[in-house]
Amino acid sequence: MKTFARIARRIPAVAAMLAMLLAPAARADTLIDNVNGITLDAQGKVVRFTGLVFGRDGKVAKLLSRTDKRPRTRDLDWWTDMKGKVMLPGMVDAHGHVIGLGFNLLQLDLSATRSLDEALAKIAAYAAANPSRWIVGRGWNQERWGLGRYPTAAELDKAVGDRPVWLERIDGHAGWANSQAMALAGVSAATADPKGGRIERLAGGAPAGVFVDGAMALVDRHLPQPTPRERNAALLAAQEALLKLGITATADMGTSVEDWLTFRRMGDLGLLRIRIMSYAAGIEPALAVGGQGPTPWLYADRLRMGGIKLYADGALGSRGAWLKAPYADAPGQVGLPFLSDDQFLNLMARGAMDGFQIAVHAIGDRANQQVLDAIEVLAGSYTGDRRWRIEHAQVIDPKDLPRFAAFGTIASMQPVHQTSDRLMAEARLGAERLKGAYAWASILRAGGRLAFGSDYPVESPDPWAGWATAFTRQDADLQPFGGWMPQEAVTREQAWAGFTTGAAYAGFAEGVFGRLEPGLRADFIIVDRDPLLASPTELRATQVIETWVGGERVWARK
Amino acid sequence: MKTFARIARRIPAVAAMLAMLLAPAARADTLIDNVNGITLDAQGKVVRFTGLVFGRDGKVAKLLSRTDKRPRTRDLDWWTDMKGKVMLPGMVDAHGHVIGLGFNLLQLDLSATRSLDEALAKIAAYAAANPSRWIVGRGWNQERWGLGRYPTAAELDKAVGDRPVWLERIDGHAGWANSQAMALAGVSAATADPKGGRIERLAGGAPAGVFVDGAMALVDRHLPQPTPRERNAALLAAQEALLKLGITATADMGTSVEDWLTFRRMGDLGLLRIRIMSYAAGIEPALAVGGQGPTPWLYADRLRMGGIKLYADGALGSRGAWLKAPYADAPGQVGLPFLSDDQFLNLMARGAMDGFQIAVHAIGDRANQQVLDAIEVLAGSYTGDRRWRIEHAQVIDPKDLPRFAAFGTIASMQPVHQTSDRLMAEARLGAERLKGAYAWASILRAGGRLAFGSDYPVESPDPWAGWATAFTRQDADLQPFGGWMPQEAVTREQAWAGFTTGAAYAGFAEGVFGRLEPGLRADFIIVDRDPLLASPTELRATQVIETWVGGERVWARK
Repeated sequence: MKTFARIARRIPAVAAMLAMLLAPAARADTLIDNVNGITLDAQGKVVRFTGLVFGRDGKVAKLLSRTDKRPRTRDLDWWTDMKGKVMLPGMVDAHGHVIGLGFNLLQLDLSATRSLDEALAKIAAYAAANPSRWIVGRGWNQERWGLGRYPTAAELDKAVGDRPVWLERIDGHAGWANSQAMALAGVSAATADPKGGRIERLAGGAPAGVFVDGAMALVDRHLPQPTPRERNAALLAAQEALLKLGITATADMGTSVEDWLTFRRMGDLGLLRIRIMSYAAGIEPALAVGGQGPTPWLYADRLRMGGIKLYADGALGSRGAWLKAPYADAPGQVGLPFLSDDQFLNLMARGAMDGFQIAVHAIGDRANQQVLDAIEVLAGSYTGDRRWRIEHAQVIDPKDLPRFAAFGTIASMQPVHQTSDRLMAEARLGAERLKGAYAWASILRAGGRLAFGSDYPVESPDPWAGWATAFTRQDADLQPFGGWMPQEAVTREQAWAGFTTGAAYAGFAEGVFGRLEPGLRADFIIVDRDPLLASPTELRATQVIETWVGGERVWARK
Repeated sequence: MKTFARIARRIPAVAAMLAMLLAPAARADTLIDNVNGITLDAQGKVVRFTGLVFGRDGKVAKLLSRTDKRPRTRDLDWWTDMKGKVMLPGMVDAHGHVIGLGFNLLQLDLSATRSLDEALAKIAAYAAANPSRWIVGRGWNQERWGLGRYPTAAELDKAVGDRPVWLERIDGHAGWANSQAMALAGVSAATADPKGGRIERLAGGAPAGVFVDGAMALVDRHLPQPTPRERNAALLAAQEALLKLGITATADMGTSVEDWLTFRRMGDLGLLRIRIMSYAAGIEPALAVGGQGPTPWLYADRLRMGGIKLYADGALGSRGAWLKAPYADAPGQVGLPFLSDDQFLNLMARGAMDGFQIAVHAIGDRANQQVLDAIEVLAGSYTGDRRWRIEHAQVIDPKDLPRFAAFGTIASMQPVHQTSDRLMAEARLGAERLKGAYAWASILRAGGRLAFGSDYPVESPDPWAGWATAFTRQDADLQPFGGWMPQEAVTREQAWAGFTTGAAYAGFAEGVFGRLEPGLRADFIIVDRDPLLASPTELRATQVIETWVGGERVWARK
């Protein structure tokens, strides 16, 4: 430094100029060149480019068109020629359960089983291979099995009789226990249905084996808690699965304090690669984590607790969704509201008061009305940019649809639910009520905002399936022909926006990711086809080749 | 950049040289000049200096002697002339309770009361001024009041009868309830003493009002939990109090998950100024936070959970300390061990297995033996640098003293406890057993390591009082004349080391802070006198003028 000081004294003007010139050189860039780059812009228009430059800060510095001059190689940290491969902004999932996905990946998974017998065989094989004290799994779906009824404890006993077994239904709204698990939980014919729940019963009143919604806790609370070490493994497994699918950011809908500590452990060690928009599992964990409001963005915009997830009702499959009129296939039943309108309003106000964003699970039309009513009241007191979210927004009374526009309410929806639920929804809701079900296009037309996600692990987190579903209303087998209620399909570009810019906006992250534009984080993926030109079937088969987050390649196909 | 590139091409050699020379200039320094600087070096020797340079990384770059050339002003970010004031490394407290101190500062504080009547008057005045549902406070000491017995609920009822009152004893090992609090807790003559605890009783068996150790939970668990917001306020209040006293780093002995989340909230917002070496309140919170081992240093070396705090026994004042032979003033009582030797060994092994440092509260000679026995067993399996800590190590059987040397065991002691406990300890222990009590010099002579702290809020966190006590064995009133068992006094420099390098070493932080030396964090204080020349009374009166952590001035006297 002394030597330089001496030179500087002699030639101060030259030194000053050189110092100025050298300064930018310290912030060297990376160029990903010769890409078939596609992104949406802030107005939702498609932009194409052929090169992307990002800085050491992990932010996009420039999008280059074919004719733009490239930076000189010597001014770059690194550059590569992608040989015309397709580059897209990373996909964003507006509604998932990160740690839940991880446990699923590490757990017994029944979601692919197509019959009760196949499931029982898989359970028995898993139990034989795993010496754990409990057998825990999820993913069963009696509808998919064509069973026409819930499975029973007696059936499960035939697969595993020596240990307790507890298996969650695919939607997480019911659990299936064997006799050992029920004995440990101390449930019997004398056990009353708890509030907000139902014990399926045999003739005579003895528990049959399935516990719906609020009754799940009777067994749940006897499960051994996962250790922090297992949670670490779950987060890393989920992250790997999401990055592999091209998802670079996700909402975590219902973060417990333990989940949060897991995110932080991995963040502290530099192992958190994906971006997580965390919504606390209720007000208590939100305050425990945030204290008196959302946390800042942490780990270079990789983690933030910005909101609170609340529940207005249950799910359609288990008839826990709260409807205005009785279920078409269960006369007299309207589902299970979690709270009265007044109680719910108070709860929502408590969260909003501390500046948290509120995201409410609402499936049935009555539940959606409850939330829209509450937003109408609260929007008067809590002005400013609140971005009220309704998660799922599955069944809306058509006369409530325009209410999504009034306070910028976001409908956070999961296109694949529509194809999974189609037949069940028809049975539960009847023809007339289907008009406001999974009504993506109607919500957009009414002036509402859409954010798309998958609700993983309820569904696969695969965003390509979600994207294809959103503009076709067809499943992977192209059923039904012409699409189910095709007037509710959105355009291919609107669907993409739902999984990128819309999902980012829903998490107050539109200034951080969701598009490729100077100043936003360099979160992008290299894929093997052009999703704007692919057929729906081709789009579903998209292969991610590389996934980059903040200018770091965090996953690559081997 | 382009212009420079062109110049560079023409004069590459010159450019390369200049680039090299410019690089260090970007890391500009700060000079604190004209100080009367004093620090210990790595060998524990006193080093004097007159200027300190630190970099933008918050680390000491250089200590300057009077004759050393100063950096040129133009190469500095900032410099100042301290006009000969004394600069010391920041003080380190090896044993405190950060959030507890904060709540104390925000709560009813009875520690200054000198009689029961004075306390009752203060409680009544506080209750009149605070409309809270419970009156909660701490700091009473029936020994200091000269009461010769515990106070009663009936006495407390006279001060506050309309609300529950719960007041912890100064050592945190007993609680005093009024009748309302006891009624809410549902305790009566029929309530048995819980394991590890004792309910003080009236003739007839009805609870008298004071609950010792394990019995405190009977009332404690009915207290309203502090909100995260109140925890934030507590942390900030504690931090302010510690920085004001010149403490720049502290151990937090018994961090709950809630405490940890509070540290993180303030850290995330850039409000954590003090450095915290966190020891989890047991194995569960350690695993919840660290997952499978200590956390890294976070927030530029301001926070780390590196260890676990365990308990071997209670306290001497409440006769919870576990002694080898009965209390001199309570024949037949030997105190309350928390676990059997085998159980304790298992617990300690569980924590050590995951790589956490183990710090065990042990007061009585039997408890200290339990820990030393366990260390002897565990040191065989857990080799490497484990730095086993015994917190307090208050009463050691002289024949156990040499065992501190064998595995580098650290005695983490609180000099001021000796002066506060003196008369009580004489009564409890009797003359013979005092030989191994508060035996600082003996532990050093035996080859053990010392770390000093205050156990705030049990005592004031004031490190100047602690330092003066450690080499005088006298209290603030210079009692007793010549010092209490003066052979156990350490030297002035050894005492200082206990509150700086020793406390840092005990927290695996000797490479981070504790001294002033290039590469360590620039944590220093400006004080109004030279502590190596001051009389003990003058030393106690030391005024901190400025406190700096990591090269930032975080507190200054107004």
